[in-house]
Amino acid sequence: MKPDVIKKAMEYRELIDVLMSDFNYADIVLYGGNVINVITREAYKADVAIKGKHILVVGESEKLIGNDTLVIDVSGKFISPGFIDSHMHFESSMLTISEFSRLSIPSGTTTLVADPHEIGNALGPVGMLAMADEASVTPNHVHLVVPALTPDCPQLETAGVDVSSKDMAMLLNYKNIIGIGELQGFSNAKHVYRNTPEIITDLVASTTYATSIGKVVDGNAPELFGSELAAHIISTGGRCSCHETTTKEECVEKLRQGVYVFMREGSTQRNMAECIRAITEDGLDSRRAILATDDMVAEDLENLGHMNEIVKRTIAEGVDPLEAIQMVTINPATYFGFDDRGVLAPGKLADIAIISDLKNMTIDAVFVEGNLVAAKGQMVIDIPKYVYPNTVKNSVKRGPISKDDLEINASGSMATVRCIELIPDQNLSGSLEFDLKVKNGVVLPNTSEDVLGIACVERYGRNGNIGKAFVKGFGMTSGAFAESVAHDTHNIIAVGTNMEDMTLAVNRVIEMGGGLAIADRGRILDELRLPVGGLITDELTGSEVSRKIKELENTVKTKLGCKVHAPFMHLSFLALSTSPKWKITDKGLIDVNNFRILDPIKD
Amino acid sequence: MKPDVIKKAMEYRELIDVLMSDFNYADIVLYGGNVINVITREAYKADVAIKGKHILVVGESEKLIGNDTLVIDVSGKFISPGFIDSHMHFESSMLTISEFSRLSIPSGTTTLVADPHEIGNALGPVGMLAMADEASVTPNHVHLVVPALTPDCPQLETAGVDVSSKDMAMLLNYKNIIGIGELQGFSNAKHVYRNTPEIITDLVASTTYATSIGKVVDGNAPELFGSELAAHIISTGGRCSCHETTTKEECVEKLRQGVYVFMREGSTQRNMAECIRAITEDGLDSRRAILATDDMVAEDLENLGHMNEIVKRTIAEGVDPLEAIQMVTINPATYFGFDDRGVLAPGKLADIAIISDLKNMTIDAVFVEGNLVAAKGQMVIDIPKYVYPNTVKNSVKRGPISKDDLEINASGSMATVRCIELIPDQNLSGSLEFDLKVKNGVVLPNTSEDVLGIACVERYGRNGNIGKAFVKGFGMTSGAFAESVAHDTHNIIAVGTNMEDMTLAVNRVIEMGGGLAIADRGRILDELRLPVGGLITDELTGSEVSRKIKELENTVKTKLGCKVHAPFMHLSFLALSTSPKWKITDKGLIDVNNFRILDPIKD
Repeated sequence: MKPDVIKKAMEYRELIDVLMSDFNYADIVLYGGNVINVITREAYKADVAIKGKHILVVGESEKLIGNDTLVIDVSGKFISPGFIDSHMHFESSMLTISEFSRLSIPSGTTTLVADPHEIGNALGPVGMLAMADEASVTPNHVHLVVPALTPDCPQLETAGVDVSSKDMAMLLNYKNIIGIGELQGFSNAKHVYRNTPEIITDLVASTTYATSIGKVVDGNAPELFGSELAAHIISTGGRCSCHETTTKEECVEKLRQGVYVFMREGSTQRNMAECIRAITEDGLDSRRAILATDDMVAEDLENLGHMNEIVKRTIAEGVDPLEAIQMVTINPATYFGFDDRGVLAPGKLADIAIISDLKNMTIDAVFVEGNLVAAKGQMVIDIPKYVYPNTVKNSVKRGPISKDDLEINASGSMATVRCIELIPDQNLSGSLEFDLKVKNGVVLPNTSEDVLGIACVERYGRNGNIGKAFVKGFGMTSGAFAESVAHDTHNIIAVGTNMEDMTLAVNRVIEMGGGLAIADRGRILDELRLPVGGLITDELTGSEVSRKIKELENTVKTKLGCKVHAPFMHLSFLALSTSPKWKITDKGLIDVNNFRILDPIKD
Repeated sequence: MKPDVIKKAMEYRELIDVLMSDFNYADIVLYGGNVINVITREAYKADVAIKGKHILVVGESEKLIGNDTLVIDVSGKFISPGFIDSHMHFESSMLTISEFSRLSIPSGTTTLVADPHEIGNALGPVGMLAMADEASVTPNHVHLVVPALTPDCPQLETAGVDVSSKDMAMLLNYKNIIGIGELQGFSNAKHVYRNTPEIITDLVASTTYATSIGKVVDGNAPELFGSELAAHIISTGGRCSCHETTTKEECVEKLRQGVYVFMREGSTQRNMAECIRAITEDGLDSRRAILATDDMVAEDLENLGHMNEIVKRTIAEGVDPLEAIQMVTINPATYFGFDDRGVLAPGKLADIAIISDLKNMTIDAVFVEGNLVAAKGQMVIDIPKYVYPNTVKNSVKRGPISKDDLEINASGSMATVRCIELIPDQNLSGSLEFDLKVKNGVVLPNTSEDVLGIACVERYGRNGNIGKAFVKGFGMTSGAFAESVAHDTHNIIAVGTNMEDMTLAVNRVIEMGGGLAIADRGRILDELRLPVGGLITDELTGSEVSRKIKELENTVKTKLGCKVHAPFMHLSFLALSTSPKWKITDKGLIDVNNFRILDPIKD
């Protein structure tokens, strides 16, 4: 037997000794509280006795209290298994795992399943393994599900590194990596299949390998039904999930077809209220309904909370609190095969959230593996700052651009242009057309109609591509902003009222080696460096990032006149070529539904 | 990638081609029926399209019907995932896997999880591997969970071979073996712990190893509560089950503590009606409630059915039919990690039961891996007779006994004796005392009081032990019967009104190399040879065994006056030293609750 197996056996053996002998006691007893039993969906009075990192007993624990036992009175409170966020990206918060954990643990979240999809696109395996290394150092449980494919649409975009089935054996057998994430091969089903059938073959090789070694396969299948949904499900090779379900109808269909539906409720995409109607209105068995955030910004984590907030919103939609808590505990634990947690029972890890107000999901204290780690919304143990190795820094490998590079040319005095429509709080976008003025052969944005320039600049030194188009929805009246966060390949994306400021902002991001920059009237107003893969800062704390982003957003709103909340996050998703309808990548304006690159000028 | 993984990937890839192309069709479409969706707990009209061994689509399948597609009209019927029996012993039916399957498949059972605990006790790994080999040849899915320990109570009984943690690596990595079964270390908790703590250490080593390689650990924990139940659960190392739960109170407690409760409903032990009250009366979430048979005799399989019958009885207790079907499909599939079945969804194996009458659970047709295998209660494909190798035959290794060997001696004219009380339809037994006549120093059974002799004769040539006591409950007035089926170590057990006939019956069993024998007034009335481990016949078909057992039982009832139905099965459980209260083994009369051997003579 391997040493870790022997160690575990010895731990269990010791627990048995405590239970069966008369002279051995629990380390901690939580007494007087109401246990939330997510297996039977009940709440009732019971103690929880803890020894080392495990739960010893849930129930009468008097005889396990010795002189050295810490007895904690939780009368009037609820004892719940710690919460699981089943799908999230640290990159979306721009935080290291350590900083994210510091903000999320006090909210009761004890397990994070993260998809290093963004750093994977930027840096490939090197980036993902660096993140898997950090996952070992935080007190909570952090697991990674890695992409089987970067970029998601090789024909339509350029990533930093191309990941494929060749990388799976190495990645999937690395510590803290539990499966494949974001399987998107069928998200624009017919077209992927028709245009790049070899991608499907490669994906199926990866997923079948993953399931053969007991790993999970997450995925997303927005707007898929019928045969296309079936093909997607089959391509995942077994147990599969979807966190891109946006309508009740889709939710019902996916649950029926065996998909674990991760109802998403994050900082921008909020699909839970719609999806949950499958449960509240149609009364479906909710065992495969799961809550996940996908993308959370530091500010929301700090001010609203994490999974407790999502559960609270779910309860507000009419779901029984115990059923809602099942969606962040036993349901995801079952999906992921986390047999060591997700329920309060003997031998399980003592990952516990003490809830003082069930309706508002106020978290009083949090235990991870039997240690009190947070109380009253604050960490009570230290999580040291984590500094990433240089191997994952300096990911921007190109020189500055010039204004000409961003201009869209047309002849005549007017041009009909294709324009992306930003849809607030959605990954999805719309498609519009406008007639814009042409001056000296260059099409001009029209700020009075809110038709602005948008561009995506390849940043990995692979081909120097720049994609250009127009966008409506930001409402800016001046300046530009740019960022090296642009889903999913994370080239540099910029939006602006004029090419000069867009160029300035892009070049500042290049100069910083990744980050966010705001330019107006020829000068940089503000910026944030993101040294890790151009996506994450290991220089600032969560609170500092939260404050910084708020400042940056405030500047974009007040100085540039932007009308959208979370403008950087919204901009970053306009490059997401797997999510309908029109997007921008380094290769140009993408017609996602038809899997092709469009000219921004119509005829 | 291993060849089987590549093969699977190619199968999935082909399914995707069928779904995404316009010139490729399903092999079979079941149309017009109502699909039972065990995920969402709904029934609704939907087609099921099948390609090869997999389900392609559940829903509109018109476009998948080509010229060569077999279209089967199932209008007015229900389409359910095939049923899973989560815990059963082939040995209890005395049938080979092939013969058992021939009887059980037409009832809709497509997966059997068998515990070769009996052949494991008799023959050790050799017997279990032989059974695992047969598991590969039948059309249904047969998996084994092997004992981590034989005998269960080394201090109290003698098995043919001692299995322990030393055997786990070899067994658990053998084909068709998916975990550990019947973990009984804590079934008489305090005593096992106090008397043989080394057994606990060895068990925990086995279970921790098993869970570390992704295997399940079944178990049984009769009458355990509180700390003892907690210790038992911890000793299983993670996901655990119990199929020896006999009261509602126990069922509630075990579900709450994270145990998957296999509500047993077999040929002798029937605990479902009591256990199900946890669901019907208390309304507990039933996701971890599972139905299992444990022990089924051929006659019941043939006349009543298998899991369909158990589901029918569960419905009769007031459970919604869809919820009852969850207990034999998605619930066990989730427990065992059978991601390839248990639900009707794209990519899952096409294991399907067509139900014509939901309330009566009448099974119209059965598919396994896309093949129609049974219709109208009969197999439509052939399952060849399976003959076991000689390595698992001739397991009886002792010479004949003499009458003296069975006699219990006492002085004086009367003796107060300890007497086992048979409790019909239970593994549990009671304890009684009687005053019996002593003649020539030998205590005499008293047929008028129904106090008969009972004995257990070691048959593996290890020590020649013979345990002796008295039993009340069979009601026999003449003769004796004996068998080499005696849970769990399967020495030869005999009950009789006189020592001559008991001796004759035992010696006939020895002579046959294992089996059942009935003796009356100095001659053998009838017998059944069980050449495989003294437990199973590979000479007769299921129907022949069913008929033979019926004849034997009829002889015991009519010729010997026995009042108990299934007398051979009832007798066999009177050796079960892990189940309270008094039992008989080769070492003597066992006080199970106190983990000790009693003198059959009181003082």
